[in-house]
Order: sequence, then C-alpha cells, then structure tokens
Amino acid sequence: MSLESYMNQIGQQARAASRLLAKASTQQKNMALLAMADALQSARPRLIAENEKDMENGRKKGLDDALLDRLLLNDSRIDGMIEGLKQVATLPDPIGEISGMVYLPSGIQRGQMRVPLGVVGIVYESRPNVTIDAASLCLKSGNATILRGGSEAFYSNQAIAEAVIKGLIAADLPEHAVQVLNTTDREAVGKLITMPEFVDVIVPRGGRGLIERISQDAKVPVIKHLDGNCHVYIDDEADAEKAFKIALNAKTRRYGVCNAMESLLIHKAVAAEQLPVLVSAFEEKGVELVGCELSRSVCSSIQTATEDDWFTEYHAPKLAIKIVSDMDEAIAHINHYGSHHTDAIVSQNYTKTRAFMTEVDSASVMVNASTSFADGFEYGFGAEIGISTDKIHARGPVGLLGLTSQKYIVFGDGHTRDN
Amino acid sequence: MSLESYMNQIGQQARAASRLLAKASTQQKNMALLAMADALQSARPRLIAENEKDMENGRKKGLDDALLDRLLLNDSRIDGMIEGLKQVATLPDPIGEISGMVYLPSGIQRGQMRVPLGVVGIVYESRPNVTIDAASLCLKSGNATILRGGSEAFYSNQAIAEAVIKGLIAADLPEHAVQVLNTTDREAVGKLITMPEFVDVIVPRGGRGLIERISQDAKVPVIKHLDGNCHVYIDDEADAEKAFKIALNAKTRRYGVCNAMESLLIHKAVAAEQLPVLVSAFEEKGVELVGCELSRSVCSSIQTATEDDWFTEYHAPKLAIKIVSDMDEAIAHINHYGSHHTDAIVSQNYTKTRAFMTEVDSASVMVNASTSFADGFEYGFGAEIGISTDKIHARGPVGLLGLTSQKYIVFGDGHTRDN
Repeated sequence: MSLESYMNQIGQQARAASRLLAKASTQQKNMALLAMADALQSARPRLIAENEKDMENGRKKGLDDALLDRLLLNDSRIDGMIEGLKQVATLPDPIGEISGMVYLPSGIQRGQMRVPLGVVGIVYESRPNVTIDAASLCLKSGNATILRGGSEAFYSNQAIAEAVIKGLIAADLPEHAVQVLNTTDREAVGKLITMPEFVDVIVPRGGRGLIERISQDAKVPVIKHLDGNCHVYIDDEADAEKAFKIALNAKTRRYGVCNAMESLLIHKAVAAEQLPVLVSAFEEKGVELVGCELSRSVCSSIQTATEDDWFTEYHAPKLAIKIVSDMDEAIAHINHYGSHHTDAIVSQNYTKTRAFMTEVDSASVMVNASTSFADGFEYGFGAEIGISTDKIHARGPVGLLGLTSQKYIVFGDGHTRDN
Repeated sequence: MSLESYMNQIGQQARAASRLLAKASTQQKNMALLAMADALQSARPRLIAENEKDMENGRKKGLDDALLDRLLLNDSRIDGMIEGLKQVATLPDPIGEISGMVYLPSGIQRGQMRVPLGVVGIVYESRPNVTIDAASLCLKSGNATILRGGSEAFYSNQAIAEAVIKGLIAADLPEHAVQVLNTTDREAVGKLITMPEFVDVIVPRGGRGLIERISQDAKVPVIKHLDGNCHVYIDDEADAEKAFKIALNAKTRRYGVCNAMESLLIHKAVAAEQLPVLVSAFEEKGVELVGCELSRSVCSSIQTATEDDWFTEYHAPKLAIKIVSDMDEAIAHINHYGSHHTDAIVSQNYTKTRAFMTEVDSASVMVNASTSFADGFEYGFGAEIGISTDKIHARGPVGLLGLTSQKYIVFGDGHTRDN
C-alpha cells in the first residue's frame, strides 16, 4: 500500500472511531484506561525487549546519552506509565458538560455542550512514555488519536500500541481510537498535518525546529509550544525576602524547563541593595550571568549581555540581568523580548500588580510567585498535554479541557424565527 | 514607500496601539464608540459623496445589482452604522474579567483573566457598513484592528476611516487602534495574513473562494466561516405540527443565509403522512425539490437528487429531501454530508434528542427549533463578527468573547516550587 493510501486509511479509521468515542460513557473510557494499565503490566518483558532493540539501534547510530536516556524503558518507567493511566482514569470527564442554558427573548433556551475535538494528531520525540500520556489524555477527552513518535522509538512504540489496543478492545471501544503509525517515513508526518478532513488538531511535542516546521506546513490547526523565555521583575516596592526566594527558585529549580526564568529585571532603586545578594546566590549555584551596563556597574562579575541575550531561552544555568527605571520599562521589555509564556512580578504595591497582570501579554502572569508554577499539574489539571504559547483556543498549560470544544445547543418547542 | 514597508509600518502601529487598548477602560472605549457615531453623523454628506464615487466606478465596471446594493451607503445605512456603534457601546465589556481563582495544594491561587487577542486583521467584501461593525466589535474587545475591505468600496471606506479616527482621538485612544488600509493592491492581503509578529488572528468575511484562499495561505490563525449546509431531521416521534413549522421556517425564512436548511431528512415511518403536506407548502413558496428515490415514490413532483446535492449549500429556493430508516442514519448523513454548521432534530423522544445533541458534530444543534436561530443576535450576544465553522477557539456565532483570550494569573505570597 502506498504511504498516501495508508495515511488515508488511518485517517478514515480515526474519524470513524472518533464518532463512537464521542458518545462513549465515562465508565467505558475509564475501563479502557485501566485495561491498558493491565495490558502494559502483562507486556512488561516484551516492552523491555522491544525497547532494547531501539536502544541497540540508538547506540549504533551514536545517539548521545541524554537522547538514549529519554529513549529507555525500564521497570520504573513502565510503573510510571501504569500510574499515569490510573491517574487519568480518576480525572473528571469533561465531555458532555452542559452550561449556560439561558432563555432568550425569542423563547429558545441556548447554552453550550462540551464535546471532543474529534481526531488529534500528535507528533513527538523519541520518548516512548509520551505514547501513553498522549493516548490516555486524548481517550479521556473522547478524541481519537493518531500518534507518530520519533523513529528511534519505533519498536517500543509498536509494543506499547499493542497494549493500548488490548485495553480498547477489553472496554469494547473501537481499536482505531488510538493508532500508532507503523512507518518511520518522514512523509507520513507531512501527510498527517495536511489532512483536515480527518484530523482536527495537531499537537507537536519536541524541539523548536520540529514545531516550527509543522506550524509552517500544517493545513490543520496546531496547538503549539514554542519558547519559554520567562522573566521575573523585582519592583522597588518588592518584599526583598520574597523577591530573593522567587528569583532563585525561578532560575535554579531546574534549568532545562520552559518555565525557568531566563531574564531578571530589577528596579534601579533597589538594585544596589538586592542585586549583589542575588548575584552571589546565583554564582554559588554556578549560574553564568550576563547583564546591562548598569547591572555590571553594580556587580562587576556580570558579563556584558548582547541584544540576542534578551531574546534567548538558555535552557541552561545562564541568566540575563537588566536594571530598569520603572515597571513600565519592565513591561515593555517583557512584551518585546519575551515569548509570552510566563512572567512574574514581585511587588507589594496593589496598583502595580494589577497593571502588570493586565499589561503583560503572556499565557501565565505570576504575582509574588515563582514562574515554576506554570505547569498543568501545579495548576490542578491533573495532567498536561503541553503548554501552549498561542493565544487562540488553548493558552498556557493544556489539560483535558484544551482537547475539547464547545458546541451550542438550543432547546425549543416548535420555535421558529419571524424576522 | 514599498508595499512591504507600508504593511510593516501598519503592523507595528497596530501592535503598539494594541498595548494601549489592552489597558483602556470600559468608559474610554465606550466614549470612542459614541464619538465615532457623532463623527459619522457630521460626515454624512461626505460619506454619501465618497460612496457615490465608488458606485459610479462600480457601475462602470458593470457590477451587478446585488453587488451595487451592498456597496450603497444611503441615509438609512448610515443610521444603521450609528445605531450599531451605540449598541456596541451598551454591551458589557468582556475584558479583564477574572474567573476561577482557586487555591491549590502548593498555596498559590490560580485563575484566568479575559484579555484581548491583540491585533485582529479583517478582510471583507465591498460592504462599507462592515467597516464599522468590525471596528466597533474589535475596539470594544480591546483589540487593534487592520481592516481591508473590497476594492470597490475604497472611497467609502477611507471616508468611514476618517470618522473612526476622529472618534478614537476624541476619546484619547491611539489613532492606530483602527487602521483601514489605503491600498487596493491584492498583495496587501497576502502580506497581512503572513505577519504573525504583528497580527494575532485573521477574520475573513465574504465568499467561500476568498475564505479558502486566505485559510490556505495564512501564517496566522484564521477564524473562518465556510459552508452552512444545514439539516432538519424529522423523527418518527416528532410532533407533526412542530415539524412542519420548523422545516418550513428553516428553509423559507430567507434563502441566502448560512443557517437556512439545505436538506430535509425524514423518518420513513412518517414520510407518507407528513412529506406530501410539506412538499405542497414548499412548492407553494416556489422551492425546487430534489430527493432520494424513496421520497420520489411518495411525492412524484420531487426530482432526482444527485450525490452532489447532499453536499450543496444552495443559498437558493431549492431543497434536497431524503427519507431515512432511523435516527442513526440521519446522524451519519449529517456528519458525512453536512458542513458542521447547524442541524436540527424534531422529536418528542427524550433519549433520541439527547443522542442527537451528543452525536451530531456541528457548531449548533437545535432540538425542536428552527436552524434560523443560529445567529449571534438570536443567541443574545448583542453583536456578531461572523459564524465559525472551526472547532478550535470560537465555534458557531462569534460575538465579543470570540475576540478575546484568557491568560492564567497566579497570586502568591513569596511562593516557590520545591519538587
């Protein structure tokens, strides 16, 4: 079968399965999730054996240690996948919720019903556990899924797919509700993102290059996560102790995460007092510091920042520091150089915190809290499919709700429209 | 100035204006809307004179009567624009609303704030009054707007733009909050829809060709409205009188609207009794009827429907009729042939109406009410920028809320994340 025919078949099967999933009961979806957990449990030896093939190929291809680590499936990672499935089963089902049914002057009653998006295509890196994360969230939200993992994880993903299908069949759900592509042909991704008749939304996960390429070529809406170039602004009316804790946590909790602070902005009136303490703490943690000329005149160990630094998500123990004249300058800097992901203000001033929240154009705005909290679990969603830096549809951490839509429903009693 | 530079300048000005609009007070935005109404009032002779240039050019170009009618600005249309501005001023301001602020185990309090999208680009047909509709809705929702109307309305739109700018200045809002492009170069649209750095969303209005072209080429999210191929399904447990009223209203209230019924589906058990009455009524109104073989055996005046008929939005006094074996067949037909716009069931059966609502994959689903109600005004939004047939972001009639986004806000008190 040609790739074209194969993908069309996958698409048709997904669309047909999505119709059945849209009306599946909560109980049935939960049963499938738990049956998948059982199937993974039983398949443990096979999962590890298939993963070993991928690991072997990866080592031959010379993948670096970080990539090999992400590729690895061991008992503890399989435990994690099983635990994840059980957790998703305990989450409230968002589908079918009816809200806002109000009577209108014409006599009709109008409101909204929450429904699945339909078919979700997910393109992701060579991390086999993402297969289960993605499949479980899409299933719980009533969506059929087409999964395309990184080619290095091919055998692992196929083995996981077998367990997933066993779970679906055990719960009497369509086996095509979750389909893992059985090809590593790159053209398959190109086709997947240009089948609007079969796919309602694409969620790309992985590197910026992949996400940009997919956004560029897609003919289907994309829920995308680009940079997390996050800021903390320390106001002249900040509580110094809170400011210190928040700035340190935002940068040093973990360096490779998208909600880490990449630039620190500090008001000129408190820089001389607070910056040296912060600089010492960062240096103690091994954070490389660059900054504006003013900051260098306060702390001579800071290196000169270039224009590019302000735009950069380091993903590393490196931080850019800028002294600003007032909050307005901080807000303008954040809106210009930032990536509209997550930004924080530390201030005790009521009016300024309100203005910062209103004017900073980011998916998450923190007041006197670390940027680290921008996360689906910390926000109480119980799960996360990603963090969106788009303004359309889902913005910020995306949980089950981001995989749903709302349709209007109208109740009448023979009502017709006159005008 | 090259077109490229001109569009970049427009984009930069819009982005800068959007920052100021995002923090404009409700009062200030309403003041601007009322000042625009005053400015239109004062500019009446100029508006009519400039419109006459467009009409003259249109007549020379041989535009047909329908197009010339849409292009015309007369006193009553200017009254309509003024009235529209006043109505938008009375609508509640959606911006700044904070909702769902809940405490989470970490101690942070998390919720959402409703914010403008930023910059909205609108591409529309040669109907000058749309300039005011679009500008007023975007302004009220705190968005900067870039408007590109049809080239036949060039002089009218420039004159309207002058009044709009007067209103903005009178309310001390940035004059670039609403920008009407002063070029009829088609390349300007191509550029507008590919400037994601300056434009957050595009709303195309007009013919299907325009919308498809824009969706195809855009590098910015598009809120689009494609076909309205709407259905009414008359169940075997329908109240015959309600069914008759609803079907007649859905088809014959107006023929050229997107929420008009294009196909009627009727259960085989009641077709023999109800279809002849309906067919007579439709024929009396001059509606051309095509249908399936079964329907033709019930009413011989029905002509044979082709496969294409089921996919077609006639926008005309023409209707396709199909007799179905049960509700499931009706739902499958609607999901396959329909355009996911608006579909209705007429039935007294509780279980079936619930299933129809759940399973029909459309932006609006009506129970015992005419499809004609799918409309922003009828839904109580007070205004409408369009009707979306997308599932992402805005679905169905789009009012002010569809021009907004929600960002997460977090309140802490020095909170940091440990794990």
